[in-house]
Amino acid sequence: MRITERVRGILDWYESDNPGTKANLARILGQGELGGTGKLVILPVDQGFEHGPARSFAANPAGYDPRYHFELAIEAGLSAYAAPLGMIEAAAATYAGVIPTILKMNSSNSLSTIKDQAVTASVSDALRLGCSAIGFTIYPGSEYCFAQLEELRELATQAKSAGLAVVVWSYPRGPLLDKAGETAVDICAYAAHMAALAGAHIIKVKPPTAHLSLEAARKVYLEQNIDISTARARYAHIVQSCFAGRRLVVFSGGESRDLPGLLEEVRAIRDGGGTGCIIGRNTFQRPKAEALEMLRQIIAILKGGV
Amino acid sequence: MRITERVRGILDWYESDNPGTKANLARILGQGELGGTGKLVILPVDQGFEHGPARSFAANPAGYDPRYHFELAIEAGLSAYAAPLGMIEAAAATYAGVIPTILKMNSSNSLSTIKDQAVTASVSDALRLGCSAIGFTIYPGSEYCFAQLEELRELATQAKSAGLAVVVWSYPRGPLLDKAGETAVDICAYAAHMAALAGAHIIKVKPPTAHLSLEAARKVYLEQNIDISTARARYAHIVQSCFAGRRLVVFSGGESRDLPGLLEEVRAIRDGGGTGCIIGRNTFQRPKAEALEMLRQIIAILKGGV
Amino acid sequence: MRITERVRGILDWYESDNPGTKANLARILGQGELGGTGKLVILPVDQGFEHGPARSFAANPAGYDPRYHFELAIEAGLSAYAAPLGMIEAAAATYAGVIPTILKMNSSNSLSTIKDQAVTASVSDALRLGCSAIGFTIYPGSEYCFAQLEELRELATQAKSAGLAVVVWSYPRGPLLDKAGETAVDICAYAAHMAALAGAHIIKVKPPTAHLSLEAARKVYLEQNIDISTARARYAHIVQSCFAGRRLVVFSGGESRDLPGLLEEVRAIRDGGGTGCIIGRNTFQRPKAEALEMLRQIIAILKGGV
Amino acid sequence: MRITERVRGILDWYESDNPGTKANLARILGQGELGGTGKLVILPVDQGFEHGPARSFAANPAGYDPRYHFELAIEAGLSAYAAPLGMIEAAAATYAGVIPTILKMNSSNSLSTIKDQAVTASVSDALRLGCSAIGFTIYPGSEYCFAQLEELRELATQAKSAGLAVVVWSYPRGPLLDKAGETAVDICAYAAHMAALAGAHIIKVKPPTAHLSLEAARKVYLEQNIDISTARARYAHIVQSCFAGRRLVVFSGGESRDLPGLLEEVRAIRDGGGTGCIIGRNTFQRPKAEALEMLRQIIAILKGGV
Amino acid sequence: MRITERVRGILDWYESDNPGTKANLARILGQGELGGTGKLVILPVDQGFEHGPARSFAANPAGYDPRYHFELAIEAGLSAYAAPLGMIEAAAATYAGVIPTILKMNSSNSLSTIKDQAVTASVSDALRLGCSAIGFTIYPGSEYCFAQLEELRELATQAKSAGLAVVVWSYPRGPLLDKAGETAVDICAYAAHMAALAGAHIIKVKPPTAHLSLEAARKVYLEQNIDISTARARYAHIVQSCFAGRRLVVFSGGESRDLPGLLEEVRAIRDGGGTGCIIGRNTFQRPKAEALEMLRQIIAILKGGV
Repeated sequence: MRITERVRGILDWYESDNPGTKANLARILGQGELGGTGKLVILPVDQGFEHGPARSFAANPAGYDPRYHFELAIEAGLSAYAAPLGMIEAAAATYAGVIPTILKMNSSNSLSTIKDQAVTASVSDALRLGCSAIGFTIYPGSEYCFAQLEELRELATQAKSAGLAVVVWSYPRGPLLDKAGETAVDICAYAAHMAALAGAHIIKVKPPTAHLSLEAARKVYLEQNIDISTARARYAHIVQSCFAGRRLVVFSGGESRDLPGLLEEVRAIRDGGGTGCIIGRNTFQRPKAEALEMLRQIIAILKGGV
Repeated sequence: MRITERVRGILDWYESDNPGTKANLARILGQGELGGTGKLVILPVDQGFEHGPARSFAANPAGYDPRYHFELAIEAGLSAYAAPLGMIEAAAATYAGVIPTILKMNSSNSLSTIKDQAVTASVSDALRLGCSAIGFTIYPGSEYCFAQLEELRELATQAKSAGLAVVVWSYPRGPLLDKAGETAVDICAYAAHMAALAGAHIIKVKPPTAHLSLEAARKVYLEQNIDISTARARYAHIVQSCFAGRRLVVFSGGESRDLPGLLEEVRAIRDGGGTGCIIGRNTFQRPKAEALEMLRQIIAILKGGV
Repeated sequence: MRITERVRGILDWYESDNPGTKANLARILGQGELGGTGKLVILPVDQGFEHGPARSFAANPAGYDPRYHFELAIEAGLSAYAAPLGMIEAAAATYAGVIPTILKMNSSNSLSTIKDQAVTASVSDALRLGCSAIGFTIYPGSEYCFAQLEELRELATQAKSAGLAVVVWSYPRGPLLDKAGETAVDICAYAAHMAALAGAHIIKVKPPTAHLSLEAARKVYLEQNIDISTARARYAHIVQSCFAGRRLVVFSGGESRDLPGLLEEVRAIRDGGGTGCIIGRNTFQRPKAEALEMLRQIIAILKGGV
Repeated sequence: MRITERVRGILDWYESDNPGTKANLARILGQGELGGTGKLVILPVDQGFEHGPARSFAANPAGYDPRYHFELAIEAGLSAYAAPLGMIEAAAATYAGVIPTILKMNSSNSLSTIKDQAVTASVSDALRLGCSAIGFTIYPGSEYCFAQLEELRELATQAKSAGLAVVVWSYPRGPLLDKAGETAVDICAYAAHMAALAGAHIIKVKPPTAHLSLEAARKVYLEQNIDISTARARYAHIVQSCFAGRRLVVFSGGESRDLPGLLEEVRAIRDGGGTGCIIGRNTFQRPKAEALEMLRQIIAILKGGV
Repeated sequence: MRITERVRGILDWYESDNPGTKANLARILGQGELGGTGKLVILPVDQGFEHGPARSFAANPAGYDPRYHFELAIEAGLSAYAAPLGMIEAAAATYAGVIPTILKMNSSNSLSTIKDQAVTASVSDALRLGCSAIGFTIYPGSEYCFAQLEELRELATQAKSAGLAVVVWSYPRGPLLDKAGETAVDICAYAAHMAALAGAHIIKVKPPTAHLSLEAARKVYLEQNIDISTARARYAHIVQSCFAGRRLVVFSGGESRDLPGLLEEVRAIRDGGGTGCIIGRNTFQRPKAEALEMLRQIIAILKGGV
């Protein structure tokens, strides 16, 4: 594992954490093609809970097998693999030590009519399965957000004291937010900041649009001339909102479904100072060779290539 | 107990489990007429809670006595017997070690107006009663599903660390699902997949119909040409949805009340790669000799007979 | 204490219980005039919570004093005395070891508008007060029933592991049940069966009427020709619904307020195979001499007299 | 401390309690001018929570200082001082051992729209502050009453096992009770009886009026000719409702604001067999000298004077 | 650290606390420019949760970095720095021992539609991060207030037994209060008093206006001639409402946005006997030099200057 100067600098951001947590962050930062660069690409496979098996895996049936995703992440040289309990249990021993895993602690599903998630795993599960981190989703703006933040506190306290890292998916939704509001740049920045305040080591948000949602915020963005005109500027604003760049921030692939558009987003993330991508369906729903080629290009961009 | 190559292969699917849990899975897979084949027939008697004593046992009054069901399961050479606390307590000492038992942890009842279940037993009950597994029902789609998944997490974590196996009954219902939706093949597959993601060792769902319920799912089934035209294809799809067949999946007898129809279903389960049946009322509500003969035929089919 | 063959046989029904719980059941079965017969008469005094002090005790003011009820139960040679925390605390030391006590764990009251009960005692209270059993009421059909069953599970698990017995009062009520439904024979049988499934050692239900309440059940009672034409037949049906008679089942005195009617009910309980009576207001609201005479007659009937 | 025959007799009522709790009851019964008589006058200062500081203390600003109330209770020779956490913390060390204190565990406030109380202290607070008892309010009839009784059970169990006494304020209110009903004699008696059943050592209710509120109770009061015609008779009925006088029962000052009326009430409490008074605003809102003189007269009456 | 006579006198107010808590109060009272004077200026930075990052930090982008606020508080010679978990974690090691920190345990946010807060930190977090105190917000009048008071009890009990101090932000809101009511002097006094009763060591309220909100309180203010005509008189009334001045009380800067108005408020706080200020946005949203100059003037006034 390459503990470069860059990685050492990043670990210094997490000055309150115990050596166990730092070691797990180092494992993720040292893994794969991006090892040592301070950049990350993470493979998340929680689509089965969110959308069901056919909508997740029928396009590329190899994905029905939990071992496929471990192999995809390893072959592509990714930084970590994130999934719910059953998916990790099904292959954690086979790939023990080969790639860091993030146990996704809570999940929603398409059959539910409630804007909450169920906590389906525990920190002791993460430990017995050899995971490096726990993952947790909050819905800022939802009427369940306070309860979710309290569940996160409980799990994060346990995880940190057990030497695990904490990854927070922060997805705004709720009565005050329309569809456009959920990815508005002020809301994305707010959601990322909340995750940071709640003690996340790695923060995951969606790519921000140029829309401004909260009236009170819009005024400030205009008065202070905050640049949100380009994707790069917006990513930079999100990164700044995470303790002036002193937290790792990864982004999902966004709406662009074609490869050039996706790579363009990755360039903007990199140029805005973002840590990298967390990219699921866009990879495991393609044939493996195609997915590997796409991930190779993403990694090359994050490494500084064109 | 016959630990065959087939059973050893199945135990390998559960690579994250401790030897205690593997031993209990081995006990169930090694029991009775199907011992060593990797196939299962389980007798569940939770009808008393669900429908009351007369609707459950008056047709065959021998069933009022908890000892009857142990004896039926043993004489028929079944794989395991599942029942609520009181039913197990009443005869667990008499039949200790003779047949693996599954303590059903939660139950509903016909007097209730709430689509939830009460948790009426604990993992420590399962241990003091010598059970091999706990059983738990979830209602994907119900407004109680997140709470049920969290109860399951709690109980499953305890059970696994105590070396017990976890059997999940996954019965979709709730505001988004009409009657046809509850057994639609996309919903059955989703329900089975959720149970797998939640960490179940053995999954129980109802036989899937050719109906498709979720609009978003229907599109994918058509686009991807997923074969759901025959019962066998549908069972195969459910099995695939459980980690590409790397989880044990059993099915209830379905709606067909006549024996030929039931046996036809069993052939389809077998041919679709399903693990077997969990069959209650259809057995204990018949005279014992008749029930034994029916179970003999089911077992013969699962063993590969016509 | 007389441990007769009959009592030994009854204790064998409870084959999963530890010696502590068996000893406490033996204490209750060995106590008083019915000691050794396998029959029981229990004095319950939870009227103070349910109806207030004046409605409970003004008819016979001696009953305001908690010591009175201990003395009544002892002088009458009853099997056990059941009451809420305060009533037991007030005299448990004076009568320590003289008669088995059942600590009633939950209670409702006439000022409440909610069909639930408050849990007002704990298993550690039962232990420090030297009780032989805990008592708990469930309301099958109530919207609180699942929560009550879960409270019962918690308390019963603690009680059993501490060597106490568990007595369950099962009183159906709720949105699906009208007044007649609450004592309909199908509902009484269902309620008694649920208590058995939940792990009760002694079950208390109200005397069943010939009414049938649930449509789905009525069909079965008619099809299967279940005899509910006489009180004796109905008691026998309830007893059968409690694991084919392998659980102790006691009944309250019913609606009949005159002595001959009450004694007639006791004969039917005996002839139907019931364990006996739990009889409160009918005793402690009469002058002591009258109550003792009445209890003498009840005991004589349960012993097999006319 | 004078442990008189009278006090010894009262302690015998509490035969289930450990020596620690008996010692604390003895401390309260042995304290001050009434020490050894079996009578009590308690100073409660929870008005700050209930009505705010100005409405509580502006009439006599010395009362803003928590030390004032300790001094008032000590100088007047009262039996104990009851107050919420902050008030006790602010002076408990200064007056350690000088007067028994009762830590009021729960409180409501005038800004709330909910008929419940917040539990603002714990038994461990009572222990570290050297208190002799905990105080707890229940609202029989409120939709929160079951929850309050369960909180009381939890706290009382802890308190008793730690050798503390338990004082219960029982204030009926809720959907079934109009204003007159809250102090109706049948309701007061019921409320006092519930506190006794819940395990209270000392019970506090409001002075009962001659009103009867519950229809079912009214019938019994008339049939049984229960005397509620005089204040004395009503107090005697409340005392009887507390285990035939075998629990300590104290009353608040009632509605009468003038001194003669108040003293008349005290005479009726004494003559009805009540234990004494719990009297707050009527004392600390007067100038100290005036309050001391009033308390002197109350004590003289409780001692048997005119 | 200067433990002056003044500080020693203040510590004596907290006579029930253990030496650990007294030491932490002493650390705060001994810190910075006001060390030893018994006055306090605290920097709170919980704006990120309440209003989001841009509205909090865009005016002075240096504030995006958590280290900035530590440095501002240290350079200005303030008494303590208060912030949520993430903000403290991000720099606690760098500034360990340099300035006392207060871990803000709960927070709300502008995306929420619920008048509650989420508890996002624990006492064990406060201990591992070397904090001197926990901070907690209650909303007296809110339908969540009882639950908040109970959360506070839990956290405060843990904090005190671990030797930490407890700071309570008491912000009235809820169905009975209109906008003017939230800062009415009777409501502010009530809110401050509740915090004192709940066991706070340091109380934070908003500057009170001359408005009176509760009808029942208004009557008393008029009858008792309570002086609320000047800011100074109102501050004095709040201080009196906190145990006659025996609790530390700090105020936010109020509505006045211009410096002279703000300094005028500080003079009134000082003259009314208040402990000082807790002042956030007014400082960290200005350029650092400007903020330092403003804080220099505030400190000078609190020290007794003009």
